[in-house]
Amino acid sequence: MSGNTYGKLFTVTSFGESHGPAIGCIVDGCPPGMELSEADLQDDLDRRKPGTSRHTTQRRESDEVQILSGVFEGKTTGVPIALLINNTDQRSKDYSNIMDQFRPGHADYTYYKKYGLRDYRGGGRSSARETAMRVAAGGIAKKYLRERYGIEIKGYLSQLGPIKIESVDWNEIANNPFFSPDASKVPEMEAYMDALRKEGESIGAKITTVATGVPPGLGEPIFDRLDAEIAHSMMSINASKGVEIGAGFDSITQKGTEHRDEIMIDGFDGNSAGGTLGGISSGQDIVVHTAFKPTSSIRLPGKSVNIKGEPIEVVTKGRHDPCVGIRATPICEAQLAMTLMDHVLRHRAQNLDVKTDFADIPASNK
Amino acid sequence: MSGNTYGKLFTVTSFGESHGPAIGCIVDGCPPGMELSEADLQDDLDRRKPGTSRHTTQRRESDEVQILSGVFEGKTTGVPIALLINNTDQRSKDYSNIMDQFRPGHADYTYYKKYGLRDYRGGGRSSARETAMRVAAGGIAKKYLRERYGIEIKGYLSQLGPIKIESVDWNEIANNPFFSPDASKVPEMEAYMDALRKEGESIGAKITTVATGVPPGLGEPIFDRLDAEIAHSMMSINASKGVEIGAGFDSITQKGTEHRDEIMIDGFDGNSAGGTLGGISSGQDIVVHTAFKPTSSIRLPGKSVNIKGEPIEVVTKGRHDPCVGIRATPICEAQLAMTLMDHVLRHRAQNLDVKTDFADIPASNK
Amino acid sequence: MSGNTYGKLFTVTSFGESHGPAIGCIVDGCPPGMELSEADLQDDLDRRKPGTSRHTTQRRESDEVQILSGVFEGKTTGVPIALLINNTDQRSKDYSNIMDQFRPGHADYTYYKKYGLRDYRGGGRSSARETAMRVAAGGIAKKYLRERYGIEIKGYLSQLGPIKIESVDWNEIANNPFFSPDASKVPEMEAYMDALRKEGESIGAKITTVATGVPPGLGEPIFDRLDAEIAHSMMSINASKGVEIGAGFDSITQKGTEHRDEIMIDGFDGNSAGGTLGGISSGQDIVVHTAFKPTSSIRLPGKSVNIKGEPIEVVTKGRHDPCVGIRATPICEAQLAMTLMDHVLRHRAQNLDVKTDFADIPASNK
Amino acid sequence: MSGNTYGKLFTVTSFGESHGPAIGCIVDGCPPGMELSEADLQDDLDRRKPGTSRHTTQRRESDEVQILSGVFEGKTTGVPIALLINNTDQRSKDYSNIMDQFRPGHADYTYYKKYGLRDYRGGGRSSARETAMRVAAGGIAKKYLRERYGIEIKGYLSQLGPIKIESVDWNEIANNPFFSPDASKVPEMEAYMDALRKEGESIGAKITTVATGVPPGLGEPIFDRLDAEIAHSMMSINASKGVEIGAGFDSITQKGTEHRDEIMIDGFDGNSAGGTLGGISSGQDIVVHTAFKPTSSIRLPGKSVNIKGEPIEVVTKGRHDPCVGIRATPICEAQLAMTLMDHVLRHRAQNLDVKTDFADIPASNK
Repeated sequence: MSGNTYGKLFTVTSFGESHGPAIGCIVDGCPPGMELSEADLQDDLDRRKPGTSRHTTQRRESDEVQILSGVFEGKTTGVPIALLINNTDQRSKDYSNIMDQFRPGHADYTYYKKYGLRDYRGGGRSSARETAMRVAAGGIAKKYLRERYGIEIKGYLSQLGPIKIESVDWNEIANNPFFSPDASKVPEMEAYMDALRKEGESIGAKITTVATGVPPGLGEPIFDRLDAEIAHSMMSINASKGVEIGAGFDSITQKGTEHRDEIMIDGFDGNSAGGTLGGISSGQDIVVHTAFKPTSSIRLPGKSVNIKGEPIEVVTKGRHDPCVGIRATPICEAQLAMTLMDHVLRHRAQNLDVKTDFADIPASNK
Repeated sequence: MSGNTYGKLFTVTSFGESHGPAIGCIVDGCPPGMELSEADLQDDLDRRKPGTSRHTTQRRESDEVQILSGVFEGKTTGVPIALLINNTDQRSKDYSNIMDQFRPGHADYTYYKKYGLRDYRGGGRSSARETAMRVAAGGIAKKYLRERYGIEIKGYLSQLGPIKIESVDWNEIANNPFFSPDASKVPEMEAYMDALRKEGESIGAKITTVATGVPPGLGEPIFDRLDAEIAHSMMSINASKGVEIGAGFDSITQKGTEHRDEIMIDGFDGNSAGGTLGGISSGQDIVVHTAFKPTSSIRLPGKSVNIKGEPIEVVTKGRHDPCVGIRATPICEAQLAMTLMDHVLRHRAQNLDVKTDFADIPASNK
Repeated sequence: MSGNTYGKLFTVTSFGESHGPAIGCIVDGCPPGMELSEADLQDDLDRRKPGTSRHTTQRRESDEVQILSGVFEGKTTGVPIALLINNTDQRSKDYSNIMDQFRPGHADYTYYKKYGLRDYRGGGRSSARETAMRVAAGGIAKKYLRERYGIEIKGYLSQLGPIKIESVDWNEIANNPFFSPDASKVPEMEAYMDALRKEGESIGAKITTVATGVPPGLGEPIFDRLDAEIAHSMMSINASKGVEIGAGFDSITQKGTEHRDEIMIDGFDGNSAGGTLGGISSGQDIVVHTAFKPTSSIRLPGKSVNIKGEPIEVVTKGRHDPCVGIRATPICEAQLAMTLMDHVLRHRAQNLDVKTDFADIPASNK
Repeated sequence: MSGNTYGKLFTVTSFGESHGPAIGCIVDGCPPGMELSEADLQDDLDRRKPGTSRHTTQRRESDEVQILSGVFEGKTTGVPIALLINNTDQRSKDYSNIMDQFRPGHADYTYYKKYGLRDYRGGGRSSARETAMRVAAGGIAKKYLRERYGIEIKGYLSQLGPIKIESVDWNEIANNPFFSPDASKVPEMEAYMDALRKEGESIGAKITTVATGVPPGLGEPIFDRLDAEIAHSMMSINASKGVEIGAGFDSITQKGTEHRDEIMIDGFDGNSAGGTLGGISSGQDIVVHTAFKPTSSIRLPGKSVNIKGEPIEVVTKGRHDPCVGIRATPICEAQLAMTLMDHVLRHRAQNLDVKTDFADIPASNK
């Protein structure tokens, strides 16, 4: 209720600050009997991990996750799975100077107003460090969805500042530090990021996340539509400023004949809907775009005030991502996995006995 | 849990189908002692009501709301407020032909897959008719927020298909059937809609919703960020396909110095953030943009299949909105009101005693 | 969240005051495809209905329930089922004198302190009138549990003041106005109640509620144990003061060998546990005892204060149950049905694929 | 949702098994600015700790709690407080023999049926070991309630098997290993327990928990009545079989004039109600009685079956409490604290502005 729990049936409750002893979470609601070990979660954690290329923050965290409960003899037991990651590379001294500053574009001022005090070291609870737990928890959901339902969730960087991806080769994403699905754009991205770093600037990005193999019927009517909950999920990631499903904002200028995905014998003739109709999955791919703002942690001085109301100039010297969107790819995947997992469980609760006597409309995903 | 309840502390649980006897909702959590009568809710219901201009559906519903409980001697008592609107202008015969059809772009197929059966009359539960209850319930939130905190929530049509609003005069919105804040665009909109209707087409739209006077400190960290919950709220409205907070998707191409709203002695030097930092309100205006798709209910024939899997051609003859976005303005306002109301109550629960000894940063809203 | 919703997956949200125009509720989460009509719910409503014998209140309500949504062509559709009962026999003038009194044993003072104002007519929201909706909503759960799982829920009056039931014949319960399963006690009960009425007094009672055919495995660990949620459910009924599962308070003086239900080849050798072990159903009957206090609405004068703090004498002249426990039988059944229904759905969500390769231990229920 | 979270606004989500590496919990919703250190929680943990007298289990756990987050410079920050206790004295070999046994009176069979597999070491998740986290989390609630509202929560053993407490001296409770408020009964208790241990038996007990200084107005109407939530809270503790508020089961034989607590100028003339009227606190002491069954872990052989359905004899050789009720006192206090804390926050959310212009009725607590 106080905001640190995601989900209704598959719930993830997280804790931890950037410079506390550890971050962690409790995953409740995972079905019993699934094989699970730390190794299953480590891959995605490593994809998100800072310090793996010169284009992300140089903070070095091993981000090794421990499973403290809920797994016995290699299998989930159905009781809460607690995950823990120790914080190892904390340099709290980096942050003492911001103790009484309100950095522009940060949560400093708003946390102070909400709580009256805050752990200012490294952004405390508002640091993107907490997203590591989302990736770990989402890894459990991803594994279950894949093994039980054949649902695959994957993401890529679809835009880096002005550089737009034009073709998607899923096999390329792991081959470059940008999660770019288009190898031909990588040199341009590298040059852009190098220039940006020299300049002391940061830049926004767009991440596209796709779930394939989603059966029709997931999602709830009215307020808990699948797309509404996906929007919530994605917008809960630090620095996200917008979410689209399918055609998204392009729908504004589309006409009815253009937007509606007609249904042919061999399947839907398009996916403007992005995989949901009336808030419920159609069997088409779920396609989500998320906009990330440029980080405000840059070394170019910015104007602000301190807690005394005096004008100050803020220069961020810490180790920060010039484009937070880059490492957001595995986080978006994790969030989408958590959302779908929750809806799979919700669907089973109420709609277990539903049988339809007509075939599914094929997911053509043109 | 089954999707028909919005909110955690200020909750709205709705029921009803397009062609059932009535639609209604239960509003729980409204503080006691607020003056409330049906008249307070009727204004916004009338703004949403169909059949008020030739540019919206010609279904004629009086949409008169009744308060069945929770108000005594003109004041809220703190117990549930039940609201009821009878359905009067149902023409169920209009819909008998779609009984076994999956209309493209509609929830027919997905509801069938989810539930195994459905009330097909007028879209049943998936009809936009249920949004009337959101407007009524949101009206209660709006009134409380205004009277207790001075928070005002208002919206406008910021884009109708290709026609973009360029200047905002709040006083103009009520003077035209489009919720356009720019009187000079109205003739263009009328001509566009007339042509569209002749063509048998529909079109998308963008609604901008703004909350002013929001105190800093509302919202929760991590998963229940205020912006995440606003995204959920807006994306739960029928036909919405995208949500942005502040700069939204424009953030992708912004640099850090451009996006961060620097803080001057006299307030924030911009509002790229759209009123939230770290998921918590900053005191700036909350600014939200929502994209609405063109309705799929058009009279131009569309290809589809029926429940036997046979190819069919679908022609919608009912009375439908050629641009569902137009009437979405009061619905967006209502959803934003419900979201803020919920967060006001959540904030009071945990953060009642918070006092900060520094002044608020002024909301310059440049 | 504000207390008017029961359940997490099968949710019942109720509204209405004793002397408002109507009472009602929204049942969300009922699986689709179940046959349902008003008649299915009316039987239990009639069992609870006031005015059916001289031993209960003489208020006469027809308590005819209407289904406003969620049922189409005689079957549940999976969307919210709204139920409405109009209040017909309100005599508000009966209550004007208590407007500024705090009746001892009533919620007058506590509602005033909580809300600052209240609908005093007939107890307003705190009236037992709202339990009619529990019975109606519970009827839906009862029907589903019976038809889908063969779970039967039934209750009886196990103690009326000093008169204890010693033998249980399920077939007798419907044959007398006390829900007594022992026909031989009925004359004693009648004489006792007649004397009580003459005296102007009221008396407490105990209701025993039993669920048979409950499969093993329902319930959740730790906080949401099945027995904990049953305790919550029963204690939420007006006038209940205590709940026991199985041996209940007798467990205090039992030794381990006496209390533990040994397990034989042909089943459990007793049911001290009352059907749950570790908070999860064992397949034995669920057995619950609930204590109800004597109503405080009696015509013998009682001392109190009014809202000015002046001493007053309160005499209740309205039409009241001298033993509220009598009509509590169908309410207890309804609450137990709601609780089990909720846990059936929760179980399916997480534990759908659980198969054990050993047979169930028979429910001997000795 | 899967049962491991308590509360709606002040939430405690726990994890951990008896023989895993650690147990822990996340406390969310604690207001910011309260001084908090491990020492504040250790006292109650030590009161619950096993091995402190010969009358409780000889398992020796240091039960040292660590705060991993949510506290900065000695004060709560309003974000989640994670608590961790390492398991140190695990002797898993003790339990290998019960791997495929269903011990009578234990959760072995029901966990297997629910989850299909289980961590059998020391009862796994169903072990009373998890109650340590309740005590730690409840300690936070206790501290807040005391410091902010002057609410004190304390408990005692009111019955040990046949031995009933007749007088209560709050100062005596800490002076004996039984939490007995009556020093004169302690020798009898010691003799009883020594004989019981020699016999190889176990025994039930009753715990009384009292909250003083509770302001009127806490609790919600209908389903979330304060007494209903207290019943839930207490019944969620391992081995509890019954809960009473105030007069409890004695209400059954009380008449209206006897049960109703008349209101005098100087306060309530009794507390049959146990501190709640209509589910909302009256300002009187909250008085709760909880029944605990005798543990089934005894060395006297018991009949059962194994997972092959073969008859077996079960002898428990581990280190167990012959009367689990004894150590339940701090657990009951912790649960009552969590429940009241949750309702304090819920009350503030909705009823913040309620002012009544009449004085509170004094809590005479006769």
